[in-house]
Amino acid sequence: MPIDLRVDAARLQRRLDELAGIGALPQGGVCRLAFSPEDKRGRDYVEARMLALGLAVRIDRIGNILGVRAGRAEDPLVLAGSHVDTVGSAGCLDGSLGVLGALEAIETLNDADVTTRRPIGVIAFANEEGARFVPDMMGSLVFCGRLRVDQARRQRDREGVSVGEAIDRTGYGGTDDLRNVAVGAYLELHIEQGPILERAGATIGVVDRVQGLTWITFTLSGATAHAGATPIDMRQDAGYVAAAIVQFARTLSRDIEGQRATVGSLSLLPNIVNVVAGHATVVVDLRNPDAHRLAAAEARLHEFVASVAGAERVTVSFATDVRVAPVSFDPGMVACVKEAADTLGYSCMPMMSGAGHDAQILAATCPAAMIFVPSRGGISHNVTEFTSTGDLAAGANVLLHALLSLSR
Amino acid sequence: MPIDLRVDAARLQRRLDELAGIGALPQGGVCRLAFSPEDKRGRDYVEARMLALGLAVRIDRIGNILGVRAGRAEDPLVLAGSHVDTVGSAGCLDGSLGVLGALEAIETLNDADVTTRRPIGVIAFANEEGARFVPDMMGSLVFCGRLRVDQARRQRDREGVSVGEAIDRTGYGGTDDLRNVAVGAYLELHIEQGPILERAGATIGVVDRVQGLTWITFTLSGATAHAGATPIDMRQDAGYVAAAIVQFARTLSRDIEGQRATVGSLSLLPNIVNVVAGHATVVVDLRNPDAHRLAAAEARLHEFVASVAGAERVTVSFATDVRVAPVSFDPGMVACVKEAADTLGYSCMPMMSGAGHDAQILAATCPAAMIFVPSRGGISHNVTEFTSTGDLAAGANVLLHALLSLSR
Repeated sequence: MPIDLRVDAARLQRRLDELAGIGALPQGGVCRLAFSPEDKRGRDYVEARMLALGLAVRIDRIGNILGVRAGRAEDPLVLAGSHVDTVGSAGCLDGSLGVLGALEAIETLNDADVTTRRPIGVIAFANEEGARFVPDMMGSLVFCGRLRVDQARRQRDREGVSVGEAIDRTGYGGTDDLRNVAVGAYLELHIEQGPILERAGATIGVVDRVQGLTWITFTLSGATAHAGATPIDMRQDAGYVAAAIVQFARTLSRDIEGQRATVGSLSLLPNIVNVVAGHATVVVDLRNPDAHRLAAAEARLHEFVASVAGAERVTVSFATDVRVAPVSFDPGMVACVKEAADTLGYSCMPMMSGAGHDAQILAATCPAAMIFVPSRGGISHNVTEFTSTGDLAAGANVLLHALLSLSR
Repeated sequence: MPIDLRVDAARLQRRLDELAGIGALPQGGVCRLAFSPEDKRGRDYVEARMLALGLAVRIDRIGNILGVRAGRAEDPLVLAGSHVDTVGSAGCLDGSLGVLGALEAIETLNDADVTTRRPIGVIAFANEEGARFVPDMMGSLVFCGRLRVDQARRQRDREGVSVGEAIDRTGYGGTDDLRNVAVGAYLELHIEQGPILERAGATIGVVDRVQGLTWITFTLSGATAHAGATPIDMRQDAGYVAAAIVQFARTLSRDIEGQRATVGSLSLLPNIVNVVAGHATVVVDLRNPDAHRLAAAEARLHEFVASVAGAERVTVSFATDVRVAPVSFDPGMVACVKEAADTLGYSCMPMMSGAGHDAQILAATCPAAMIFVPSRGGISHNVTEFTSTGDLAAGANVLLHALLSLSR
């Protein structure tokens, strides 16, 4: 086992910069919405890198790209990857690091002429973000056989363009079916997208679980009224109820262990200064690594909304848009990541993933885990997203050594 | 004094329906935004009615239309009126009733061959609503010499069209200067736009004051953050602070006598479910008939916002968009309205106006008062705005008799 092997930090940074040039935004950052021409060019870049590294490349009908480095045995793949599609105003690291970090590990093995017993695969999943087409993690869901490719291709964006049409337009659709690929393990290197590692001064996050997630859209209907002419006790103020929900989300976060509750999306109608809001829409994002606590938060939220809306004579309807159960990663895989970080001398800490990732989809199919590196200021999904080259390389080194350990 | 004189309820309703046909919306209601072609046609209708009733018509450069019925003496005018411009999705009564109700009173006097000692004027003020061009009550401000007509004509709408251009386009601009017209008294008949008369079962509101008004726009800047990956105590959530302001507005309404505090306008950025809002804009509408209490509410609001934003590490800037002092109407005019209602046998109650009206501008120039009739469900600035023909006629009868009393 070549434990002195290290990735080339400068080369990794250069590859990330090259990919960041595709769909680059004038203000910095990138926009490569799923199945757009920019996304296609980003995936072309990945495919070209895979071919340059001698990997056998296969692309399926949803656009997942798999590159395989043969092993000495015909064992199930040791897989690593992430995605290269982005949100509309994205940083240069989310997703890209997981793909290019894995390719950097492969290049390091190639340069050192290291062969492994098990084959190592690198994958770029299609449409992880879900920013243009729902559901998010579409590519990994198809890969794992949990979403039919025909159904995925029928999903439409706001302009009415379907996934299938968008893929056909960019000419990116492959013909392979990757559902039968035997995968023995999956590792995903990712930026943290939160402030915890930075605040703790740790280099590596050993991710042992992904918290569960529930999104609930509340639609509130009261009555518009003149802000000057209508006494407070005669109002049916949907905006007041909406604001009360925002405040209660904070209460839930304080009362329930591990709970995060956020209202990032809130809209009033007609949204005019002197008109009591007749309608309001509030979307609550609830997360908890514990399924029971997450369910309790959801129940308490519904109880509160019914109560405050009832008192204001505002009617409520709601839709549970997303409900994802918490995922615990395989203890053996988590230990493998920790061991690699320890061996390499990086400070590390166990942590959960606050955000969703392809790894949580893979976790139902094979042993999986994730490696996090710090995000400056906790900022992500933003053009100012940043991680130092040293930390990026540290993450790639942990990935490299975990892959070596799993594939030997 | 012909105390048995009554307006023709059916004729008044017919005139209102005719005017409502101009700028009619498919779903009911009207749209005659200030200085639009529809507004011009509405004012043409009013001018034609004035000419048909034998009034001497004058139009000034902002589009105020004054029609005068001569009296036996050259005394200052006894003036009545309102406006015919509307908000974007308006009912058929706001403003129109004050103009057509006054014209109905004139027609009733004409039919009965009643002459008065003082001349009676009917006025349709331009751009009362301010829905397209600020400030609202533009026509009455120009009429009273408190806003220079050239300055008013330079105001622009969101498309960059100026008032002057819009007036010239519709060909509505007059050449008269009405600032030197001597006005001895002003009366305005209006729907209540609130639920108080309906709830009290009264027909006539004797309006003795208009509450003061302050609009404050708070701009809140925190930091966007991933809703899943960012612990609550590390957030700078502008949306949370915005919601706290909404809740505090309700607290102010409960704590301070006569206070109404409303947030009808609230926007988050980026307004995405899983992104902590980095920016928020909240506009607070504060109203109180007492100037000191209104000032106290404003001070407490600023104190609260500074405190809650400070705790969340969100920075605050604010703009005081509007600050209008409370107006008390002339006691003699108020008594005149009450006497007319009593004489006619209508149930009446003293009340304040919750909304702003041209009458509050006129009140600084001459003795003024207002007459309210009930609004079904308190609804106004809405296509479902409704007052029964009987109540509309009751208001016009009170106006008729108050005008008679003031002009004899």
